[in-house]
Amino acid sequence: MKKITGNKFTDLQHLLSIDEMDITLINDIFKSADKFLKNNQIIDKYKILQGKTVCNLFFENSTRTQTTFEIAAKRLSADVINLDIATSSQSKGESILDLINNLIAMGVNIFVVRHSMPGIPEQIARNIKNKAHIINAGDGNKEHPTQALLDAYTIKCYKKRFGDLKVAIVGDIEHSRVAKSEIYILNKLGVQEVRVIGPEPLMPSNISELNVRAFSNMNDGLKDVDAILMLRIQKERMSKDTIPSEKEYFKAYGLNEERLKFAKNDCIVLHPGPINRGVEIDTLVADGRQSVILEQVKNGIGIRMAVMEKMTN
Amino acid sequence: MKKITGNKFTDLQHLLSIDEMDITLINDIFKSADKFLKNNQIIDKYKILQGKTVCNLFFENSTRTQTTFEIAAKRLSADVINLDIATSSQSKGESILDLINNLIAMGVNIFVVRHSMPGIPEQIARNIKNKAHIINAGDGNKEHPTQALLDAYTIKCYKKRFGDLKVAIVGDIEHSRVAKSEIYILNKLGVQEVRVIGPEPLMPSNISELNVRAFSNMNDGLKDVDAILMLRIQKERMSKDTIPSEKEYFKAYGLNEERLKFAKNDCIVLHPGPINRGVEIDTLVADGRQSVILEQVKNGIGIRMAVMEKMTN
Amino acid sequence: MKKITGNKFTDLQHLLSIDEMDITLINDIFKSADKFLKNNQIIDKYKILQGKTVCNLFFENSTRTQTTFEIAAKRLSADVINLDIATSSQSKGESILDLINNLIAMGVNIFVVRHSMPGIPEQIARNIKNKAHIINAGDGNKEHPTQALLDAYTIKCYKKRFGDLKVAIVGDIEHSRVAKSEIYILNKLGVQEVRVIGPEPLMPSNISELNVRAFSNMNDGLKDVDAILMLRIQKERMSKDTIPSEKEYFKAYGLNEERLKFAKNDCIVLHPGPINRGVEIDTLVADGRQSVILEQVKNGIGIRMAVMEKMTN
Repeated sequence: MKKITGNKFTDLQHLLSIDEMDITLINDIFKSADKFLKNNQIIDKYKILQGKTVCNLFFENSTRTQTTFEIAAKRLSADVINLDIATSSQSKGESILDLINNLIAMGVNIFVVRHSMPGIPEQIARNIKNKAHIINAGDGNKEHPTQALLDAYTIKCYKKRFGDLKVAIVGDIEHSRVAKSEIYILNKLGVQEVRVIGPEPLMPSNISELNVRAFSNMNDGLKDVDAILMLRIQKERMSKDTIPSEKEYFKAYGLNEERLKFAKNDCIVLHPGPINRGVEIDTLVADGRQSVILEQVKNGIGIRMAVMEKMTN
Repeated sequence: MKKITGNKFTDLQHLLSIDEMDITLINDIFKSADKFLKNNQIIDKYKILQGKTVCNLFFENSTRTQTTFEIAAKRLSADVINLDIATSSQSKGESILDLINNLIAMGVNIFVVRHSMPGIPEQIARNIKNKAHIINAGDGNKEHPTQALLDAYTIKCYKKRFGDLKVAIVGDIEHSRVAKSEIYILNKLGVQEVRVIGPEPLMPSNISELNVRAFSNMNDGLKDVDAILMLRIQKERMSKDTIPSEKEYFKAYGLNEERLKFAKNDCIVLHPGPINRGVEIDTLVADGRQSVILEQVKNGIGIRMAVMEKMTN
Repeated sequence: MKKITGNKFTDLQHLLSIDEMDITLINDIFKSADKFLKNNQIIDKYKILQGKTVCNLFFENSTRTQTTFEIAAKRLSADVINLDIATSSQSKGESILDLINNLIAMGVNIFVVRHSMPGIPEQIARNIKNKAHIINAGDGNKEHPTQALLDAYTIKCYKKRFGDLKVAIVGDIEHSRVAKSEIYILNKLGVQEVRVIGPEPLMPSNISELNVRAFSNMNDGLKDVDAILMLRIQKERMSKDTIPSEKEYFKAYGLNEERLKFAKNDCIVLHPGPINRGVEIDTLVADGRQSVILEQVKNGIGIRMAVMEKMTN
């Protein structure tokens, strides 16, 4: 299958996956985000996307993520269309591709697409009739590239170099698109060791190909790490899958202050949000001195601005 | 009944119907659309509606049409309010007129109104207390003027003059507001012959007054036409009305490649969207060389920009 | 409990209640509103909030009020985010405070909060981690400060001075946040007499502390007043509470032309909207020469612009 992201060098036609991304481009996006986040704040408004239209197409609801793209696009002076898919012509039986081709004809330049089926953003990118940019904002359990970019960027802000770092990802690795994208980007950035921690039944079957070290015991996995990437537990999985109960999960894999001591003293704690306090993370850790969760959110605006800027260079 | 559209000469207080529109004004709107669509693209952003507020009031859901007005208004730098009618004070028993008078007091200048009852936009225009502009975005089975304007404009882009043209409208003429507005505008523009094609029970009872030639056989109706305006079939009519089934309808009135050959070789195919592939139009035609469906969508932005510009001259 | 509104002098960190507001600040806001409403119209667009983001957080639906804040913010060139709470991560069990801290991290500067529980906006203001402005857009039956500001401002536009005025508030005083805020502001502005009119069971228990004169007979209460502030009757209370029926309520406390004659000849009639015609107010009064209901709506935009301007000085 031909790779179509066009991510060689520094131009960015689509952002579909971290897996296919060039390290040069990743560093380029980080540099651009630095510019928007100077003095650690996003204050200015830019004319970079003036006259451009960004369309949020969330086939799976996520007000949080949608809002980050809306804010990022408006800071660049884009017009933003939030399409309410539930009431759109989707319900009239129109295909996604017809919908998107129509929106391109209306003048939409960038689509932010979330879908519960893996690969939909790529399929769209391959089949649209005219030129437009597709950003994958999460496709099934496959990838969530902007989340991984902002996570890695946040680590970089605190740790400067990646080469010496041990980083642990904790939770339901198998079903998490965030985990996949994080594994890809951390390896591309050359961290010393990527660890994944979680119950064995929630480890992906292709774990051996991912260049990670797997742990089912949390204390072992956290030993001497520099950063912990917690995953949000999907409560809806609790019943049907191998996760016994919130309480038992927290007991085995919840991050509390005691457990955090296994990691390095200056280890930082990340979480993609929204957090489930007392389920995968203790309140004292979520609000504690090592938590950089709100930094991630702020960096997420800068990273998304950087991605959209790269697309319209 | 006094006509209130104020469409004499070139000013445009309201856009309520094609039936009451002056040909001078129609041509004026086309000329203005040319300006926005120069080089066949909408790229620039204009300050024409800066400081003005446009409010979408869709009492009948149509994300697609609403989005076209939103994009058009934003390209003119208007502020756009999408009122979610379902959760608005409509549900608190407030009258439409009280709602609109309130919105005018808040500073809304242009209302885009869709309603399932014919005549509602006109009633609003007659009864509002202070000055504002009303655009009919579809009222029951009565009219959908901006759709007809963009259809006729698209024909003009391909065929230059209307005087020599035979144009066929195909589908459920009786229940289609698009068909009504198309019939009015094509006659005003002086096409040689307007044909309507569809099952006899779906022909309007006042067909003899509409200056059209009716066909119940599709092949006969398509013979030598220059443009075909397909209508979207309302699937919800299938059961209760005289349309037997999707399959039978497609057999009798679906536009496929074979049937298209009855028309002129350079005949163009239009559809207001969203299309039902395999119901009223075959995929090969919808995506074929004679289809101008996506051109219509693009022209629709230019036409709606032109209409709103005329209102605020 | 420490007061945190920071409303001393002329800066405005939060707008949580009229009760805690300084009279200097109220007059300051009126003066700023004068500027936006010059010539009795809101026409210009200002750059005052350019680069700022305003977020509407309505945990209780009110399209009407939300739209006034949206329009006011856009007139000041702010970016506006309307968070659809129903589909937001609230439904994923995230706390309000986590949600708001996240939105602050994304760059939101001003939150407009409506909630069915009294005190929520103040709780938010006390507990957010970083700097942002909170506007109370109605919290349970406690307060609705911007409504009271625009009501008082509208009275000022017609009556110039407050010292000579008798003002009557009519309806379900007990359950009305609007009534509470109106009582506070009218007393702060030094009106001669604030009257409350309504069925005794709908009078608040702390009525004696509110510096008002209570009437259960409407004709007595309206005698010689200069302004009448009608309250919207909550139909959902009719059954469960002490309001017998719409018809009986209208008979006892509905404002009709006959009853209006008890007031001064130049008495003005206000209503926060949306009005229930024939329930708490007769159509002839609502649309009559003494009604200033649509003026209130227009002034509401100016007042909200003034409040937001004060916050970002």
